[in-house]
Amino acid sequence: MNSKENLLKLFLDTRKHTEALCKPLQKEDYVVQPIVDVSPPKWHLGHTTWFFEEFLLDGYLADYKRFHSQYAYVFNSYYESIGARVVRTDRGNLSRPSVDEVYEYRAYVTKHMAQLIENHWNEDLIPVLEIGIHHEKQHQELLLTDIKYILGNNPLSPVYGNIEDEVFINNKTPKWLEMPAQIYEVGHSKKEFCYDNEQPRHRIFLEAYQISSELVTCGEWIDFINDGGYANVMLWHTEGWDWVQKNNICAPMYWFQENDQWNQYTLNGITGIDKSSAITHVSYYEAFAFAQWRGMRLPTEFEWEAAQQKFSWGKRWEWTESAYLPYPNYQKPDGALGEYNGKFMVNQKVLRGSSVATPNNHTRSTYRNFFHPNLRWQFTSLRLAQSI
Amino acid sequence: MNSKENLLKLFLDTRKHTEALCKPLQKEDYVVQPIVDVSPPKWHLGHTTWFFEEFLLDGYLADYKRFHSQYAYVFNSYYESIGARVVRTDRGNLSRPSVDEVYEYRAYVTKHMAQLIENHWNEDLIPVLEIGIHHEKQHQELLLTDIKYILGNNPLSPVYGNIEDEVFINNKTPKWLEMPAQIYEVGHSKKEFCYDNEQPRHRIFLEAYQISSELVTCGEWIDFINDGGYANVMLWHTEGWDWVQKNNICAPMYWFQENDQWNQYTLNGITGIDKSSAITHVSYYEAFAFAQWRGMRLPTEFEWEAAQQKFSWGKRWEWTESAYLPYPNYQKPDGALGEYNGKFMVNQKVLRGSSVATPNNHTRSTYRNFFHPNLRWQFTSLRLAQSI
Amino acid sequence: MNSKENLLKLFLDTRKHTEALCKPLQKEDYVVQPIVDVSPPKWHLGHTTWFFEEFLLDGYLADYKRFHSQYAYVFNSYYESIGARVVRTDRGNLSRPSVDEVYEYRAYVTKHMAQLIENHWNEDLIPVLEIGIHHEKQHQELLLTDIKYILGNNPLSPVYGNIEDEVFINNKTPKWLEMPAQIYEVGHSKKEFCYDNEQPRHRIFLEAYQISSELVTCGEWIDFINDGGYANVMLWHTEGWDWVQKNNICAPMYWFQENDQWNQYTLNGITGIDKSSAITHVSYYEAFAFAQWRGMRLPTEFEWEAAQQKFSWGKRWEWTESAYLPYPNYQKPDGALGEYNGKFMVNQKVLRGSSVATPNNHTRSTYRNFFHPNLRWQFTSLRLAQSI
Amino acid sequence: MNSKENLLKLFLDTRKHTEALCKPLQKEDYVVQPIVDVSPPKWHLGHTTWFFEEFLLDGYLADYKRFHSQYAYVFNSYYESIGARVVRTDRGNLSRPSVDEVYEYRAYVTKHMAQLIENHWNEDLIPVLEIGIHHEKQHQELLLTDIKYILGNNPLSPVYGNIEDEVFINNKTPKWLEMPAQIYEVGHSKKEFCYDNEQPRHRIFLEAYQISSELVTCGEWIDFINDGGYANVMLWHTEGWDWVQKNNICAPMYWFQENDQWNQYTLNGITGIDKSSAITHVSYYEAFAFAQWRGMRLPTEFEWEAAQQKFSWGKRWEWTESAYLPYPNYQKPDGALGEYNGKFMVNQKVLRGSSVATPNNHTRSTYRNFFHPNLRWQFTSLRLAQSI
Repeated sequence: MNSKENLLKLFLDTRKHTEALCKPLQKEDYVVQPIVDVSPPKWHLGHTTWFFEEFLLDGYLADYKRFHSQYAYVFNSYYESIGARVVRTDRGNLSRPSVDEVYEYRAYVTKHMAQLIENHWNEDLIPVLEIGIHHEKQHQELLLTDIKYILGNNPLSPVYGNIEDEVFINNKTPKWLEMPAQIYEVGHSKKEFCYDNEQPRHRIFLEAYQISSELVTCGEWIDFINDGGYANVMLWHTEGWDWVQKNNICAPMYWFQENDQWNQYTLNGITGIDKSSAITHVSYYEAFAFAQWRGMRLPTEFEWEAAQQKFSWGKRWEWTESAYLPYPNYQKPDGALGEYNGKFMVNQKVLRGSSVATPNNHTRSTYRNFFHPNLRWQFTSLRLAQSI
Repeated sequence: MNSKENLLKLFLDTRKHTEALCKPLQKEDYVVQPIVDVSPPKWHLGHTTWFFEEFLLDGYLADYKRFHSQYAYVFNSYYESIGARVVRTDRGNLSRPSVDEVYEYRAYVTKHMAQLIENHWNEDLIPVLEIGIHHEKQHQELLLTDIKYILGNNPLSPVYGNIEDEVFINNKTPKWLEMPAQIYEVGHSKKEFCYDNEQPRHRIFLEAYQISSELVTCGEWIDFINDGGYANVMLWHTEGWDWVQKNNICAPMYWFQENDQWNQYTLNGITGIDKSSAITHVSYYEAFAFAQWRGMRLPTEFEWEAAQQKFSWGKRWEWTESAYLPYPNYQKPDGALGEYNGKFMVNQKVLRGSSVATPNNHTRSTYRNFFHPNLRWQFTSLRLAQSI
Repeated sequence: MNSKENLLKLFLDTRKHTEALCKPLQKEDYVVQPIVDVSPPKWHLGHTTWFFEEFLLDGYLADYKRFHSQYAYVFNSYYESIGARVVRTDRGNLSRPSVDEVYEYRAYVTKHMAQLIENHWNEDLIPVLEIGIHHEKQHQELLLTDIKYILGNNPLSPVYGNIEDEVFINNKTPKWLEMPAQIYEVGHSKKEFCYDNEQPRHRIFLEAYQISSELVTCGEWIDFINDGGYANVMLWHTEGWDWVQKNNICAPMYWFQENDQWNQYTLNGITGIDKSSAITHVSYYEAFAFAQWRGMRLPTEFEWEAAQQKFSWGKRWEWTESAYLPYPNYQKPDGALGEYNGKFMVNQKVLRGSSVATPNNHTRSTYRNFFHPNLRWQFTSLRLAQSI
Repeated sequence: MNSKENLLKLFLDTRKHTEALCKPLQKEDYVVQPIVDVSPPKWHLGHTTWFFEEFLLDGYLADYKRFHSQYAYVFNSYYESIGARVVRTDRGNLSRPSVDEVYEYRAYVTKHMAQLIENHWNEDLIPVLEIGIHHEKQHQELLLTDIKYILGNNPLSPVYGNIEDEVFINNKTPKWLEMPAQIYEVGHSKKEFCYDNEQPRHRIFLEAYQISSELVTCGEWIDFINDGGYANVMLWHTEGWDWVQKNNICAPMYWFQENDQWNQYTLNGITGIDKSSAITHVSYYEAFAFAQWRGMRLPTEFEWEAAQQKFSWGKRWEWTESAYLPYPNYQKPDGALGEYNGKFMVNQKVLRGSSVATPNNHTRSTYRNFFHPNLRWQFTSLRLAQSI
């Protein structure tokens, strides 16, 4: 599975796919950072490249010469000194290196990585190479949602192109899937690649519950809006309510109303809202309030994982009630990669599933995505649950 | 247990105890609010009184006349209109009502409550009366820690008086208490009073772990400081590290160094640090970083509850790794009291135990306290755990 | 004029008057600081006292012992260390020293100052003593307007008492006073006490202008409101417009509307608006916009000073178009008092006249008051002018 | 002078010059906005074009069709609705329209403007056309300094190219130029183009003063630094001191120290500091503190204008002590252009002269530039004065 040939192919395919995602962009689109949670596409291209340079080429390829002495600084850290000179490096302020230079950087690193894999193969490379590839796949997902944010917040509403299931129609009638009270096993048993935060596989006890077979739809969400859901303080967490008030939230992200009709920006341009499509671009705060309004709740991440074989998923990230915390006996990886996941394990909520922005082979039933509860630029959605 | 006589006595004792806590104060101490998390003592006195007026006297005592038409506004909400006039009511800006008027308000409400209980007894009163009493006990705890903050941040370091075990010396050698992997029951079975968030009692599965018999000491914390714990980014959550940097945190709250000696403000004045005393006034961020430094972790709230009979506790609130979330089948109370606990169940960490500021009869092994991870003005501490 | 006897009497009268202003207060009123521009009355009492201790008693009275070693810190600086301990000393957070202690401090310093003046008289004392007395008179003005803010922003609208001409009725019909183009002399010639910023007397050339004999009235202001003055961007400075938008400004401070009637808080309680009374509690931004609306402008401070003998003034501070800048050949005083005025000479506007809050003998036609253009808790007003 | 032919040539030359300034840029450089005071070059290109479309083509050229219906929104306002859709249009977040599209927009408008001038000439066009041309010249100045900021705050320190006198060496020994006390005339008499804020020409009286024949040098500034000028609170305005503390200011903008040597970023790359060169990129706060340190002061704008024929100027904008205020009898232009200057006349300081970034024919001795006192990305400098 993780043969040299397989990994080389996977590496090269991943590198190509990142660049393919940027094809519809104009150079200017690569540069801007409209909010702090969104990174400029140029930065994604450089940062994923820097990862291979920093953790593989620099240590494993003899005589490797870095493409540019300052790129480790530009594509990694936030505030630092360059020799004696201190400058701001907010990602969205950096016009240089140019897009062309970043693509040259990518080509240079990809070429040397291919040499490393082909000519200097070593089993020690495998774990870091796998992390590097999956790291780039994670950034592919962010890349697409960041592009949507950049274009979707431009008054000219530019079109990127058609993404399959960006509007995800599902006409199935939701059913309650019953789950008995018992011990379940969750987490990854680590035969193939997974992240540290999915391990170790362990036992949990779940009281009986039922979980919906389908995601909440836009039609149901319009009912929530029309019933005053965004104006009813009793449905919201105190922090959620503050967020609604402060930001004048009254609909999912990208929605706007014109002549009493709800419309939305999609990567393919402005379109109406199909009531049978799955709701998306909602925050955890909104997902929670919606569930309260229905007299139900969100599943925990374990309830989701225990039941996931009984329903279809994979088009939307699904908010859960679970906070992002380490599993029993969680081990941070050694060395510099040790800070990969653990340092984010406070004040974030877990999302399960995957989305239309998730690249191939990057979907696992044990995968734990996590975001702050106010964020909604990902393809986030929800599925209802209740205790029984 | 919940006889009319018992409840009347408990009510009157609670009311008296709140006022006894304020005895050492000067009038000026009742008024200020140095940070948003701390309320002026005057507000605690009024708010706990308003609770009885709003939820009991107003509905159950015929012909009851409110003490003052504006007090519901002053002692409850944040921003609102008084008739046509809109004014700011940040708690720390309100010089009126005066301290004397607030005590008159208390006496008036206490007197009418006693009449209600003695002369108009009705079993319907019990649950609300219990909540009201326990609500006031919760505020007693906050009252004492808020007073400590108000006096401890005054350059004159005023003395409040001696509080038993404010400096909590414990010379026992810590032992590891072993807990096997199995299903445990946690939560309150609701024979006596408890809060909604402690219910329902339910099953959880815990993998094997061990938990320390003792709290971390100030001596261990000084070792952490001397070993550069506050300067080592690898030990901290990203958010914790930002908090350390932004606020120049380098020691527990109330600590300061003079001539290479660590000292602290206590309610009894400035004193040196006894290395054998339990650490206190640390944030969750600090507790987590300390545990990382020791190569261990904090227990979850369930690990704590499952093991609590094996160690002594009750002098310090103990941070756990658990986020504050609803239990399976958690039910919000009906009506206005429904927002008592549930609306805070996001972005907070659970603390277990109780502290020297906790009033009598307000300690339960199932009690779930919760605060944001940066707060440390409570008597917070930690106990180490590890998976085995 | 500045004999020992006169100055002793002036000193003692000034000290008494400050305390007389506080008579209607309850202890709690002395403590709070609702906005940063308002100081707690307790701080005014202590700060004016510290000034005499710091600049006179400490240097001129042999064997003088300071009342308290920390008061120089409490009543002077903002952030500093007390020995090794660093605490926040935002003025509104300091419950101690208590009001009683501050009055003891005042009595102690007043007594020693009287001894210094009576028994150790020395002409060197005169300039500093004069500054100290006038410094306290300045604080009397602030004291009264700060008290108005503290009480006027309390939902209980407490009454302080009647202040003559707080509502200033003036039924005279405004006339244009004509002033020819010529050289005028402005500034103080320093025969009696004045501040550094009023000196030196110097020549200016004014082009011909006319200035109104009367202040703008509340009736005219209501016309401005009704004509959409607060909603017409063309009337405002860009910064003024931002201030209006951000703070939802739609009327002068202390005004509120009830049943289509305009009312206001005064130190004597809530009252209706008399249309013939002079407008007050408006910012420079509002004064400017009003003048634009009328097709006129504010006078410069020199136009005001050149014409002031032709109209009556002294009930309201009057905004001018002038920025607060040094006069030609302005000299900063030597030593620690050098920073008295000059360091504020940027981004502030000059006000001329005086107000109902100005103490006796503190009014001069050359007096230059100054505030940031958004402030309106002083008794500010305006008089129109135009070039001809 | 303002013949059709002259104006057409001036118009076309101005349009070309703007584009010539952008020649050294890469597309990415056109897009970013590192601080709010700096605009993306793309925005300058579009905004100056929109001005001609909005105020000339739309009204005077029959059948003119706007290039794009949304560009008036993109290149003018800040927050507004596009039909029903509300999006953020912070200038630095707009990747579209692309640079190519903006150049097409420029070509389209330039072509139609040429048609308007050539084929539909009308004397009514003159004043608006003049404003439009001078408006674009003002933006040329900003364009170059904004480009310097964008490149100079990039960790790669990209080179733009050589700008004559960007480092301005002047080895002349400064002399005091004496000016007698008398009435002077200042302001523009409006025979040729000038801005509203330079008018009307009027009389002022100046007390006797002397003004330096030369700008302060970098060598003098290094003396100021070495003498602790940035650490001596007595030299600064209170607001200036806060600015220094908050932003850790310890040298002019673009300066940095390496191995005890001062260096700077210039548009031509990193270079050492020549002590005989004129100081530049300092704020008014710094200029004031420097003058205080020398026991002198800045000239007022009138002192500058009265003396300007006696010294050479034109390489640096010079801070004056004057606040930006209207002249006696100042008239706002009618209509939409009325808000051109007057709305900024509060809380800004006047600068006189011009700079190496000022385009040809845009320099006048009566020209009044103005900025907030903290800004220093322009080529700002200072000349000392003193009263005598």
